[in-house]
Amino acid sequence: MAGKGAKASGLVTPRSPLAPAGFPDLPPVAGIRFAAAEAGVRYRGRPDVMLAEAPPGTQVAGVFTRSATRAAPVLWCEARLAEHQATAGTGGLAVIVNAGNANAFTGTNGSAGVYRTAEATGAALGLAPEQVFVASTGVIGEPLDPERIVAKLAELQQGLAPDRAHEAARAIMTTDTYAKGALAEVALGNGTARIVGIAKGSGMIAPDMATMLAFVFTDAAVPSVVLQPMLRRAADATFNCITVDGDTSTSDTVLLMATGKAGAAPIASARSAAGRAFEAALTTVMRDLAHQIVKDGEGASKFIAIEVSGAASPRAARQVGRAVANSPLVKTALGAGDPNWGRIVAAIGKAGEKADRDRIAIRFGPHPVASAGWVDPGYDEAAAAAYMRADAIKIGIDLGIGRGTATVWTCDLTERYVQINADYRS
Amino acid sequence: MAGKGAKASGLVTPRSPLAPAGFPDLPPVAGIRFAAAEAGVRYRGRPDVMLAEAPPGTQVAGVFTRSATRAAPVLWCEARLAEHQATAGTGGLAVIVNAGNANAFTGTNGSAGVYRTAEATGAALGLAPEQVFVASTGVIGEPLDPERIVAKLAELQQGLAPDRAHEAARAIMTTDTYAKGALAEVALGNGTARIVGIAKGSGMIAPDMATMLAFVFTDAAVPSVVLQPMLRRAADATFNCITVDGDTSTSDTVLLMATGKAGAAPIASARSAAGRAFEAALTTVMRDLAHQIVKDGEGASKFIAIEVSGAASPRAARQVGRAVANSPLVKTALGAGDPNWGRIVAAIGKAGEKADRDRIAIRFGPHPVASAGWVDPGYDEAAAAAYMRADAIKIGIDLGIGRGTATVWTCDLTERYVQINADYRS
Repeated sequence: MAGKGAKASGLVTPRSPLAPAGFPDLPPVAGIRFAAAEAGVRYRGRPDVMLAEAPPGTQVAGVFTRSATRAAPVLWCEARLAEHQATAGTGGLAVIVNAGNANAFTGTNGSAGVYRTAEATGAALGLAPEQVFVASTGVIGEPLDPERIVAKLAELQQGLAPDRAHEAARAIMTTDTYAKGALAEVALGNGTARIVGIAKGSGMIAPDMATMLAFVFTDAAVPSVVLQPMLRRAADATFNCITVDGDTSTSDTVLLMATGKAGAAPIASARSAAGRAFEAALTTVMRDLAHQIVKDGEGASKFIAIEVSGAASPRAARQVGRAVANSPLVKTALGAGDPNWGRIVAAIGKAGEKADRDRIAIRFGPHPVASAGWVDPGYDEAAAAAYMRADAIKIGIDLGIGRGTATVWTCDLTERYVQINADYRS
Repeated sequence: MAGKGAKASGLVTPRSPLAPAGFPDLPPVAGIRFAAAEAGVRYRGRPDVMLAEAPPGTQVAGVFTRSATRAAPVLWCEARLAEHQATAGTGGLAVIVNAGNANAFTGTNGSAGVYRTAEATGAALGLAPEQVFVASTGVIGEPLDPERIVAKLAELQQGLAPDRAHEAARAIMTTDTYAKGALAEVALGNGTARIVGIAKGSGMIAPDMATMLAFVFTDAAVPSVVLQPMLRRAADATFNCITVDGDTSTSDTVLLMATGKAGAAPIASARSAAGRAFEAALTTVMRDLAHQIVKDGEGASKFIAIEVSGAASPRAARQVGRAVANSPLVKTALGAGDPNWGRIVAAIGKAGEKADRDRIAIRFGPHPVASAGWVDPGYDEAAAAAYMRADAIKIGIDLGIGRGTATVWTCDLTERYVQINADYRS
């Protein structure tokens, strides 16, 4: 069949050398229950469907890929999100996610499959189809048979439990080499709320097998009108600041559900003390997940933070950071441990943002490299080269023309990336 | 020293498998003389400086990199071009080019070196410094000693001859695996004019060793006010439609000199019959050179034409073509001969241009692959896979929403690309 990914079950990928020691110990989020099952959508012998259930009154926020070729589940989620936010959603919610097939570029068949999945999931949980969010990740252009998922709904419903976030995180993996989860607890004056997130992704995007999905749950009480801009800002500073290969997916989805079951007072405004504390904690969870995705980038051997300052605006800083992070020449040099700052200068130049050659300063970690339009007088090649051998590297870029800052995270480009993505479909 | 390229003279790169059979037989262009010499700017035992001289009355046009970190020679050429076009330049002209050092990000030292080179070249040829264009390609951030070039000026001046375009083309190579030249002859009613071009580049850009330079000479008579928009349009349809890795250089330079010595009547307008014929021939020469650069792309094993139609505008068509051509996932799949159209759909989606998923049609050569939002009913996987094994591949993309068309040329992304660019500086 057409449009399959580069690799199915055949490819054995070892755990990323940048992987964290293990999956974090995720405590329950009041009101949220998870389940996972083996539906055999594409993979065999591993869980590939996850279900999460949220109680009545849960508020929801979401951000999605801006791709012009968004997948059917994304279009469904966008519509459901708009409805829930317009009505301040009082019913319960659920999200059902499968790995192995993105249900993208599948025509009307794709939308029908989403509806069938939502309808059957709703029936199993006592919800209307419109209360069920659906996400899919995997190959593009292949028909997704919803009946494989539907057949597992009774098992999923019976398996729902508050402590199964790890199983859920495993069920949504595709080319990921490890499951991704993160936690924050935030004191809200009269109580404590938890924020738990799970994610998958092995590239900012590898469009047909490694879509980025993240699902974040909290028991804080936050109305969706407050939650949505918080999520947008947090996504801009985290998931939107990572890149593995610059390829944007058809299916990127981040959903945030707030049950309000922690017992803390509702957060009425993002500007209140509680609102700020919550948004900071949310950003921490999402940044943690974003970093885990970069560290699982296809073929990655180094985790790289590009810290841009002195730009004309925060937006310009992010654009410059992205141009450097997406430059194949910068990424191959970093993989080789080569402090090749000439390539960074060239990438800054191509970013399309204001820059003055003679004001740019570049540092590799603590080592000054370039300043005032040329190599820095204090540059020490041996020290810089030694620094570049670490598996986590910071590149500082000061454009010297304004106050805009941004940090973009990426990984190196290695032969392994080409091998993974050139591997012919089996 | 800092900022060196990934490889100097140490790397032995075999001739690209996509290389043409040989250098074309380039006849003289009336009024133009070439010379080359070994100045030892960086390389040893090979010519690395070329000089071209044009007679009084020559008209000039140029296009340059839009990088915000343009190199000193580019800034010099931009200023000289503006002067010559403002005064309709009546004196002679010259262009001197070195390979091995880009003289980029070299501070005031860099500008001083450009002036010294122009001044000494002018003195050798009886020209003012302002009549000498200067271009450099090679490593970024290293000081370029102009005296190495200056010491060879007498030898270059004495060596000037009309039939040395091939030697000139060889002298400007860096990581190129072959010299690049192209020719067109155009009948202009009362005479015939020649257009001869030479170029170097081994990537649309690999910023520190593989800048794209092209120098085109004609004996047609075309005032610069007509020549400049012709060159801009031709560059937009040729050099600006190629990409190897999406990395834009600090030093890209295309210069076009028209001597008027062919004896044909001056071309007073681009819209006249002669103007159209000349512009078509110019575009042919530049397209030929552009294709040669792509075929010498670092690590390239396949030459790929992405033909976009049905876009909202020609600009949108080119953006979509570029997004597909720059997608690492599309490029690795093409290198593996994988007809992975799902990745093409995703790349179209991320281009930031208008697209309707359900109207996109994709062909691999003559093979329909996708249409109406899904796999084409006539898709034959075996036939498509067989087609993908060729070393020249056409991908047709019809967006189905407008009349904009564009063709973008690129090469595949291979492990060899990573090896070449990760190779630590010797």
